[in-house]
Amino acid sequence: MKKYNVAIVGATGAVGHELLKVLAERNFPVGELRLLASQRSAGKTMEYQGKEYTIGLTDENAFDGIDIALFAGGSASTEFADAAVKAGAVVIDNSSAFRLDPDVPLVVPEVNPEDVDWHKGIIANPNCSTIIMAVALKPLHDAARIKRVVVSTYQAVSGAGKEGITELTEQTGQVLRGEAVNPTVFAHPIAFNLIPHIDVFQEGDYTKEEWKMIKETRKILHEPDMAITATTVRVPVYRSHSESINIEFDQKISADEAKKVLAEAPGVIIIDDIQNKQYPMPLYTSDKDEVFIGRIREDLSIEKGLNLWVVADQIRKGAATNAIQIAEVLIQRNRI
Amino acid sequence: MKKYNVAIVGATGAVGHELLKVLAERNFPVGELRLLASQRSAGKTMEYQGKEYTIGLTDENAFDGIDIALFAGGSASTEFADAAVKAGAVVIDNSSAFRLDPDVPLVVPEVNPEDVDWHKGIIANPNCSTIIMAVALKPLHDAARIKRVVVSTYQAVSGAGKEGITELTEQTGQVLRGEAVNPTVFAHPIAFNLIPHIDVFQEGDYTKEEWKMIKETRKILHEPDMAITATTVRVPVYRSHSESINIEFDQKISADEAKKVLAEAPGVIIIDDIQNKQYPMPLYTSDKDEVFIGRIREDLSIEKGLNLWVVADQIRKGAATNAIQIAEVLIQRNRI
Repeated sequence: MKKYNVAIVGATGAVGHELLKVLAERNFPVGELRLLASQRSAGKTMEYQGKEYTIGLTDENAFDGIDIALFAGGSASTEFADAAVKAGAVVIDNSSAFRLDPDVPLVVPEVNPEDVDWHKGIIANPNCSTIIMAVALKPLHDAARIKRVVVSTYQAVSGAGKEGITELTEQTGQVLRGEAVNPTVFAHPIAFNLIPHIDVFQEGDYTKEEWKMIKETRKILHEPDMAITATTVRVPVYRSHSESINIEFDQKISADEAKKVLAEAPGVIIIDDIQNKQYPMPLYTSDKDEVFIGRIREDLSIEKGLNLWVVADQIRKGAATNAIQIAEVLIQRNRI
Repeated sequence: MKKYNVAIVGATGAVGHELLKVLAERNFPVGELRLLASQRSAGKTMEYQGKEYTIGLTDENAFDGIDIALFAGGSASTEFADAAVKAGAVVIDNSSAFRLDPDVPLVVPEVNPEDVDWHKGIIANPNCSTIIMAVALKPLHDAARIKRVVVSTYQAVSGAGKEGITELTEQTGQVLRGEAVNPTVFAHPIAFNLIPHIDVFQEGDYTKEEWKMIKETRKILHEPDMAITATTVRVPVYRSHSESINIEFDQKISADEAKKVLAEAPGVIIIDDIQNKQYPMPLYTSDKDEVFIGRIREDLSIEKGLNLWVVADQIRKGAATNAIQIAEVLIQRNRI
């Protein structure tokens, strides 16, 4: 079996760690492994399959001989993705820098694997909330054509990286001990609170996170005019994003039909046994690669509508797993 | 000024405590005050305006001479509301027992105060999430006629009473100490988790809480056919329910027009200064009587739509404050 030289840029962050874990779990055919980070982390070591690796500095010369460069996100992408491509690597990029670039495929392997075929060196990994929603929408769109989506999110603090996790833990302890809290990662206290604001505010008073869910979903589904509106909210949950998704269809689809369609959909697990109080919850979807769907109900306010409750680990399927799956699709389709 | 003899049934619970607080804060013209509870609490004492009151047992003879009987909720309403009415009291009932009874007005004073006029002894206080949404919807409905509402809720644990608060505190400490948690109030762990399930499951796989938001809102707004769909979710927040509300209108209403309408609406406070990261959050709306509205945006997925983020203290405006306001309206309109 052919092996591929893999670089991870931003190896020390939350997504970087997860990329390493997922590579190992899926037995990805790794040849040479090169872990890269910024000056602050270069020289440290990390383990992969029982072997220690010294973290190198990300710079323009760091990609010689690399086949696949996995960028975990952040500013390194705009700085070094071109250098990686020039060195001959295919870049799979988890930042938002290239996602809406018409020259860059934006890929969720369960949804639009064929888009890897036209890559020009960079393939973008979508926003976490977007990936999760797209996996749920695609099979239903194929079955009954989606007319409009209204989504409200419940997003975990680890969407802001390790620092988000630490902030929730510290603040929660402070509140329980009756101490004052001092937000640094989030704009406001997140312990026992909700913050209806993720990323910066943009056009129409939507946040960038909300625009990502709208624009990226359209690109992934190849539906540039799909009607989508979003409200994104940070919640005091460590891991896994949840989404309350309301869908209006062109054609009638019953809840039972929707369950059938979703049961056969790739990457989806239905948890919808309300008699036994079973539905997806973020506490139980961490470290899983699938998108969990429950509360599947007809929207009785319109003729052709559904409500869904969708939960997935946004660091796994929403980031690392999806990136590695893109690499696997590249290999399967001989695009590397 | 005329005074009224007031009974509080279920005085020792979370809503009972709040009813007492709100009566005092609003200088309600209380004559005799009678605090009632079940056998478990009868004989204990509670304070009101510096005076100690012994809690009496709720029974059929407990309402002699009472003008206004405030029922905090639970099974006491079906057991004793009729006895209170027979004794000559007007019952303001916070349980769900009578809300959809065509002979019982369901009142939010900012929305349909005139409905107190046709009471036959009982006036129902709506569900907490419903009250909060109705205060936000009414002025917009008057301005542009609402066609359809899609709401997703983020509901605090105190919606399940004091026990809900205790369970969140205990579980949170257990999780931080790495100990196992044992849910008793909620069906699943609530610390650092979300539970998309409030009250029992009913028709169409909607929860009773979801049906309340649909049916009660229609009754309060006098729009028996208004298209509404709801998904209700418990979140690890102590107090104040939040709601992501998407509205489709008959007539176009811009975000600016909506802000103007809501700024003048009774019981509403707008917090919508995104440049300074100001929007409603549950942590800052506790112990307040108003409904806080922010993230007011046009829904760009349809021609005539808005998104709102609405937060209010569900024990105050969602229960106790609304009940006392109903009593005030009864007095203003000479219906007692």
